[in-house]
Amino acid sequence: MIIQLNQTVNEEIVATLLKRLAATPATVIRIGTHVAVPEVNQVTLMADEAAQVAEIIEKTPAAVLGSRLFQPEDTIIKLPHSTIGGKGGFTMMAGPCSVESEEHVRRMAKVVKEGGATLLRGGAYKPRTSPYSFQGLGEDGLKYLRAAADENGMDVITEVMDETHVDLIAKYTDVFQIGARNMQNFSLLKAVGKTKVPVALKRGLAGTIDDLLNASEYIAAGGNHQIMLLERGIRTFDNKYTRNTFDLAAVPVLQKLTHYPVIVDPSHAVGEWDLVTPMAHAGVASGASGMIVEIHDDPEHAFSDGPQALKPKTYLKMTKEVFELKELMNSWEA
Amino acid sequence: MIIQLNQTVNEEIVATLLKRLAATPATVIRIGTHVAVPEVNQVTLMADEAAQVAEIIEKTPAAVLGSRLFQPEDTIIKLPHSTIGGKGGFTMMAGPCSVESEEHVRRMAKVVKEGGATLLRGGAYKPRTSPYSFQGLGEDGLKYLRAAADENGMDVITEVMDETHVDLIAKYTDVFQIGARNMQNFSLLKAVGKTKVPVALKRGLAGTIDDLLNASEYIAAGGNHQIMLLERGIRTFDNKYTRNTFDLAAVPVLQKLTHYPVIVDPSHAVGEWDLVTPMAHAGVASGASGMIVEIHDDPEHAFSDGPQALKPKTYLKMTKEVFELKELMNSWEA
Amino acid sequence: MIIQLNQTVNEEIVATLLKRLAATPATVIRIGTHVAVPEVNQVTLMADEAAQVAEIIEKTPAAVLGSRLFQPEDTIIKLPHSTIGGKGGFTMMAGPCSVESEEHVRRMAKVVKEGGATLLRGGAYKPRTSPYSFQGLGEDGLKYLRAAADENGMDVITEVMDETHVDLIAKYTDVFQIGARNMQNFSLLKAVGKTKVPVALKRGLAGTIDDLLNASEYIAAGGNHQIMLLERGIRTFDNKYTRNTFDLAAVPVLQKLTHYPVIVDPSHAVGEWDLVTPMAHAGVASGASGMIVEIHDDPEHAFSDGPQALKPKTYLKMTKEVFELKELMNSWEA
Amino acid sequence: MIIQLNQTVNEEIVATLLKRLAATPATVIRIGTHVAVPEVNQVTLMADEAAQVAEIIEKTPAAVLGSRLFQPEDTIIKLPHSTIGGKGGFTMMAGPCSVESEEHVRRMAKVVKEGGATLLRGGAYKPRTSPYSFQGLGEDGLKYLRAAADENGMDVITEVMDETHVDLIAKYTDVFQIGARNMQNFSLLKAVGKTKVPVALKRGLAGTIDDLLNASEYIAAGGNHQIMLLERGIRTFDNKYTRNTFDLAAVPVLQKLTHYPVIVDPSHAVGEWDLVTPMAHAGVASGASGMIVEIHDDPEHAFSDGPQALKPKTYLKMTKEVFELKELMNSWEA
Repeated sequence: MIIQLNQTVNEEIVATLLKRLAATPATVIRIGTHVAVPEVNQVTLMADEAAQVAEIIEKTPAAVLGSRLFQPEDTIIKLPHSTIGGKGGFTMMAGPCSVESEEHVRRMAKVVKEGGATLLRGGAYKPRTSPYSFQGLGEDGLKYLRAAADENGMDVITEVMDETHVDLIAKYTDVFQIGARNMQNFSLLKAVGKTKVPVALKRGLAGTIDDLLNASEYIAAGGNHQIMLLERGIRTFDNKYTRNTFDLAAVPVLQKLTHYPVIVDPSHAVGEWDLVTPMAHAGVASGASGMIVEIHDDPEHAFSDGPQALKPKTYLKMTKEVFELKELMNSWEA
Repeated sequence: MIIQLNQTVNEEIVATLLKRLAATPATVIRIGTHVAVPEVNQVTLMADEAAQVAEIIEKTPAAVLGSRLFQPEDTIIKLPHSTIGGKGGFTMMAGPCSVESEEHVRRMAKVVKEGGATLLRGGAYKPRTSPYSFQGLGEDGLKYLRAAADENGMDVITEVMDETHVDLIAKYTDVFQIGARNMQNFSLLKAVGKTKVPVALKRGLAGTIDDLLNASEYIAAGGNHQIMLLERGIRTFDNKYTRNTFDLAAVPVLQKLTHYPVIVDPSHAVGEWDLVTPMAHAGVASGASGMIVEIHDDPEHAFSDGPQALKPKTYLKMTKEVFELKELMNSWEA
Repeated sequence: MIIQLNQTVNEEIVATLLKRLAATPATVIRIGTHVAVPEVNQVTLMADEAAQVAEIIEKTPAAVLGSRLFQPEDTIIKLPHSTIGGKGGFTMMAGPCSVESEEHVRRMAKVVKEGGATLLRGGAYKPRTSPYSFQGLGEDGLKYLRAAADENGMDVITEVMDETHVDLIAKYTDVFQIGARNMQNFSLLKAVGKTKVPVALKRGLAGTIDDLLNASEYIAAGGNHQIMLLERGIRTFDNKYTRNTFDLAAVPVLQKLTHYPVIVDPSHAVGEWDLVTPMAHAGVASGASGMIVEIHDDPEHAFSDGPQALKPKTYLKMTKEVFELKELMNSWEA
Repeated sequence: MIIQLNQTVNEEIVATLLKRLAATPATVIRIGTHVAVPEVNQVTLMADEAAQVAEIIEKTPAAVLGSRLFQPEDTIIKLPHSTIGGKGGFTMMAGPCSVESEEHVRRMAKVVKEGGATLLRGGAYKPRTSPYSFQGLGEDGLKYLRAAADENGMDVITEVMDETHVDLIAKYTDVFQIGARNMQNFSLLKAVGKTKVPVALKRGLAGTIDDLLNASEYIAAGGNHQIMLLERGIRTFDNKYTRNTFDLAAVPVLQKLTHYPVIVDPSHAVGEWDLVTPMAHAGVASGASGMIVEIHDDPEHAFSDGPQALKPKTYLKMTKEVFELKELMNSWEA
């Protein structure tokens, strides 16, 4: 249930109403004039209470804070060098899969910047299918990544796999990335929900649209509303020529349901570099607010995910085309 | 195995070689200087035979006739009013899901044409999940569809569900459509493979890329090489907000593997009209050679698939945008 | 809608009622005192009509003839040597994937019989993924299969792929099998629906439970109610170690919804012979009414599907165990 | 790579060899005479090294410690009241989804014990799709669960969702359960891998067989080899009548590949209580080493997962039948 309060209310009466609802016992979250009561679908108001209320929406989705019913306007995330979400904008994020060395991430950062990206990505803690694969450089990696971004006037996005790392990584990053395998790691979601750092939540391999929204609600319910959602491919029966199936219809579907920005990740979706450019084109054309891609200057010797990395020249051509596509699309709205 | 013959050969020696291969017993298909022997992976040539041969490709995919190894150049399908396939072109196909009446299909055809489409679609024989749903107008429907297309200088594409209908439908259509549920109806594939009518083969709901190529090979092996492949969404775990999952990465994947044109069908892929435009944008951006969409002027009373039909105004805006996107993409190749 | 008539009715009044319903226009199917009107969910009865009616079930599934609401009692299919369906029985069907020669199918038939099977399977027309694979012996295969079954006092089950073969195959078989790829080949379903030959309908690789029931309704609506349903594995993301995913929960699910016998096919579900026995055990334990398996005395040289064929000795151990399991399960019902 | 050492070796020479391999740099894990070097596939041995070695298996799966190549014999987990794994045994685990109160879990524990189970399950920390759903009683729940198990001479299995809870939960439980959503929560897997508490690892909704084995390897690589694997249904396209698809073929597939016991969870696989008994029958028939099921005496008011809970009477009939099935199956091995 959502209760839309009047612009001016008698705060005492509202407090009594909210206390009564919370005694159900139910969660009650108030943000300005909007009150979400996810577990309650119906309420009978006293006359003085009714006088405070503009509208009540009784049937609401479980992930109520993220829904357009609760907040019709787009969430816009502002970072020192980037703006994510809202009409017309498009945010490019790029970098190597793993931070491999101080020198390498600096070299890659220059390319990333040249392509028009404003966020630098790179993994310092890597979720690898096998325990024997490279697990990341840890805090050293974070330092190199931060320095490379600062040197080029960019923001940082990097993955947090573990609630015990939240504070450490918060010192270095502008955006937490939650990986697909951790989409329903509820302890981790609660932990980042208590911070003020924006979160990029990746859809899990078997995550439905509703699962993704419910997972984002764990973050929002903790008080952190700076959330963006990442489509990165789902697991289906056909995985011979692509690693996953890129579900681009999820972009407009999510945009109808939620106010959070939707970002696409063509690199993980397809897993093969020569499919990344057409899928980047398709991604921006689907209406996404931004894109995250992996690059490497020597993919064959990359520490992880080499086959899907774009070489600098391909990356630069791709981003130029993607921005041109976005510009054309913006001309239709004018 | 593919045997690439020299430009000039001793036909007698070649005939002996092919007879020997066919005695394995194996299929031997010769098109000009190319010989496909799908079931044989190795051959020892006599000296005089070797003198006829430019190259032998020993390991080939099962669907050899459709492979780029057999024919590196794009297949281009030429119809009276349309060209499908090849660099830079984009073919629009549109119409109502079902032919509903003579008058209605004529009215729709005008809109279709106005949007820049050169093929008119419409079902006269409908594959419906339930036997109690509308099954199509049959031959009357074909007549109305043909007349509406002729009146507007367009070609016709319509579904054939049944090998006993092949001859009848061939009298009215320029392109046979094989529906997703019939992708592996091998009797039907063989039947259309014996005609000279181009075939648009839809990927099945559980069809892998290899299944689709193998299905197309049933048509090609019969002697009909005028084939295009349609991506129309696959069945996955997530079908609450979309009917199917639109697998756009299949477009560049297929373009690497096969020379047949690849067409996208956003209407069936998503099943909801308000998702069709973003997915049409994404479809052209993925590099497809064409698109097929469903329109209706009164979707709520459509005989079938109303929820996914675009109204004329939406269709006209969408096609304009799609052609602009294609034009921009062509500018990158120049 | 289902209308349950009284045991004795005024036929004239009933005829008027049914004519009125059929004028909607809707399908009206009467079997004794049961009348199904799949497309209509509500009716207002005149007083004299109401007097003929015992009960009306307004909301019914699309596949109404197959539903337990229309017929609560199990459908039992009686063949010369076999009974399929009903409480306590279990019907074994076995044989080679393809009929390979007169001699071979005779040899296999003896083994099949020894294992307690009462139906002999074998394909004469084979649906193969590639057009270059062995396509079956055709009518000769049917003759060999029939003779081998007769010699051993068994019934025949064999696949029909094509409506033009229906009459020919009906001369040789006791049961038509419709393959998974043809589950929604509606022309074929209609064709077998017009015969009196029992039909074993396989679930398609992407067939939901509802799709399967709707497909069976195409057969039933044509007048043929001798139907059994086959679970043979569905296509999912995991197909490295098994060909398909054996969905055994479909057995009790279907038994709740429909009165048709449910048969399991562990051979196609897993595709590896050493997994067939545990899945045969699981299949009978799930409550299925019967089982169909593939055997071969020389799997490495089988014309098709060798890897999943049981050798005679393994088959005989498996069937003995399956019948013991069924006997134990029957003891719980007593 | 696996190096099988001789029964008696020169430890100095072996140490040199292992140091050389570890310098690659690669992981080297020695357990008695078995040495696993997962990242290395080939080694050239000096003459004195070769004299220590019985056999080298060069190509090994990524999850080498769990593979039958590394340890051919079944892993058998011994708890105070239970033995899990090995030929002929069958371990029943049951209890409520959530620990709801001290009194309720005690009442349920008596029923569980009466049905022949030796482990009591119950969640104190619950992974719920929505943040607003009941999240468990926490440490109080653990106390009630432990007391109820002790009172009835049973072992405890309960879920750990979070590495920060590992030490706390270890004080109360005999087996850690890792839930499906956390199958690839690598931080959590590493944390339980450092304890000596046996771990029941559930297959994720999109987890392939290889993913599951690789996830188990995270635990084993940490030094904890007391692992069992749980099949609890995977996510597929068909989820109208069942919550997930129960992949019973995974049981014999896993038993070929790994020495860890395989347990089935029919409750979560189907999500509907009336399907649990047939799937429990099928589960034991598939060859599983044990089963975990959910029970409740008042499912409609259960704090979580009521629809899939068996009532006590149904549970007692089911377990009796399951043990009879297992006894029959054991008679075939004798």
